[in-house]
Amino acid sequence: MRVADLTTPALLVDAAALEANLADMASALPGPRLRPHVKAHKTTALAARQAAHGHHGFTCATIREIEGMAAAGLGTDLLLANEVLDARRLGRVVDNGARVTVAVDSAETVRAAADGGVREVLVDVDVGQHRCGTTPETAGALADAARAAGLTVRGVMGYEGHLQMLADPAERARRTTGCTDRLRVAHADVGGEIVSGGGTGTHAMNTFVTEIQAGSYALMDTAYTAAGLPFRQALTVLSTVVFAGEGRAVADAGLKALATDHGHPTVPGGTVVSCADEHLTYTPGTPLRAGDRIRILPAHVDPTVVLHERLHVVDGDGPDAEVLDTWAVDLRGW
Amino acid sequence: MRVADLTTPALLVDAAALEANLADMASALPGPRLRPHVKAHKTTALAARQAAHGHHGFTCATIREIEGMAAAGLGTDLLLANEVLDARRLGRVVDNGARVTVAVDSAETVRAAADGGVREVLVDVDVGQHRCGTTPETAGALADAARAAGLTVRGVMGYEGHLQMLADPAERARRTTGCTDRLRVAHADVGGEIVSGGGTGTHAMNTFVTEIQAGSYALMDTAYTAAGLPFRQALTVLSTVVFAGEGRAVADAGLKALATDHGHPTVPGGTVVSCADEHLTYTPGTPLRAGDRIRILPAHVDPTVVLHERLHVVDGDGPDAEVLDTWAVDLRGW
Repeated sequence: MRVADLTTPALLVDAAALEANLADMASALPGPRLRPHVKAHKTTALAARQAAHGHHGFTCATIREIEGMAAAGLGTDLLLANEVLDARRLGRVVDNGARVTVAVDSAETVRAAADGGVREVLVDVDVGQHRCGTTPETAGALADAARAAGLTVRGVMGYEGHLQMLADPAERARRTTGCTDRLRVAHADVGGEIVSGGGTGTHAMNTFVTEIQAGSYALMDTAYTAAGLPFRQALTVLSTVVFAGEGRAVADAGLKALATDHGHPTVPGGTVVSCADEHLTYTPGTPLRAGDRIRILPAHVDPTVVLHERLHVVDGDGPDAEVLDTWAVDLRGW
Repeated sequence: MRVADLTTPALLVDAAALEANLADMASALPGPRLRPHVKAHKTTALAARQAAHGHHGFTCATIREIEGMAAAGLGTDLLLANEVLDARRLGRVVDNGARVTVAVDSAETVRAAADGGVREVLVDVDVGQHRCGTTPETAGALADAARAAGLTVRGVMGYEGHLQMLADPAERARRTTGCTDRLRVAHADVGGEIVSGGGTGTHAMNTFVTEIQAGSYALMDTAYTAAGLPFRQALTVLSTVVFAGEGRAVADAGLKALATDHGHPTVPGGTVVSCADEHLTYTPGTPLRAGDRIRILPAHVDPTVVLHERLHVVDGDGPDAEVLDTWAVDLRGW
């Protein structure tokens, strides 16, 4: 099958760009130094490629992701890096033979983990993002409470999510150090062999953690590209021009195919005017006709991918590029 | 099953509010005066409720919606109110016995309709939104071209989408008249029995069209409520508080459960601070504990619904409310 044969809108992944990103990251953070975050792609077939590059532990954001990864045979060491108040489904995954560690940051989440049948936890520390997480000063007591509940505490995690997109790498590095200082305090009290954190934006500068939880690096988006990350834009949305005239073009990929929380998507050579449910209106750089096809660059990879049922792996940029494989985005939902 | 038993995040529809919205609209625009737009809910079970209220023609935004509505036995009179450049799948729906009419606005879309085996079209007119659509002055020539291609031209359509959310009803009404003036010019040249247009925001003031294409009225969102529409907020997202403390709460419904293109969702009594992939951080109005559940009001119904696999019809507001039915959001994708 060729790209020209696909129904639009369609999620495309450039095979060479994806492989380059996976190889570059595996070179920078080999094997267990990277715990790839599957939330960015929600695709077990892509996770299998990451495993082929040497990473056998994975980070997940939802129980569904944990279940799907285990079912796909990728359950060697799964971390749910979010808090849950009902861990019974996680306990069933453990009972079926996968290794599952869950983040805890409160008495309630410790109790949920123990009651649900999960045996291993990380203490989640608020390193400055001010979302979930204990304070560094209370992390040790929470670890004690977890151990008292019969749980094994493997260590700590702390995500400097608020720094990932900072445009200035020097500022990003400086402030990452402030975050890891907080994580260091917590780890001294908690103990354990794992210190987990970081993301695509701080993967090269967060040197305190034992493992980086990066996800976006594999597919990339325009927001991360603007932050100067050394990975290629592998992800695009193929779209058909349905209207062309009067100085504008309208493509058949809108809010239901492209996330806009990081701003408008990008049409190379064009200027996006607006994004509606099923339409992107833009000023094209070159004359177009209805029926022409374009590739649109998403601004934010994670919430774009969840809008699609499948992801087509393609061989290059042209309309005659071959569709090498089609992967189900099989970790969507909760 | 009770609401308390649902996995979060989960899309809830208040049964009484939905039925009130459907009944109120059916009273204002009975039978064929309303052609409900399924893009707002993408759920054939909900469309069946609209049919039970007397509306047997439906508006769709995608080919998948057309196929799904026909497969669900709701294919009496389906309008694809968007342009497509490959109508072969629509032709197959027609061959299987459904009635399908497609919007055309160019020589290319007329050719696609004819080549694809669709037999009936509406001429789509740009009434001021400046997305797709012919100019009023060229609509007649396009209708002639469609007839020459063997297509039946049922009339015209024009969507004043840019006016739907205007806060001032008087301005909305005044500017709607400007749009219908353009549609009147086109209709005089095109002919046909159908003049289709309007939406939830202009359903009461667009009196020129023969049918209104409203969709959001059934479920509603905070943006339409802010525009003073007389329908009840039937749609909420059930979420679990996963963190509570230090003046903030974090709920497990983020960008992947709630669209933010019309601004942040609303937590009654609280103030939303930020929305991340799987988290909503907010300042709660009352003290909370991890494990508490809340109902969040979406800002934009259409792109919120597509994030969910199913929609739970519930009997009231409380945690012990009964789940009366669970409907698949079965018209997603393309």
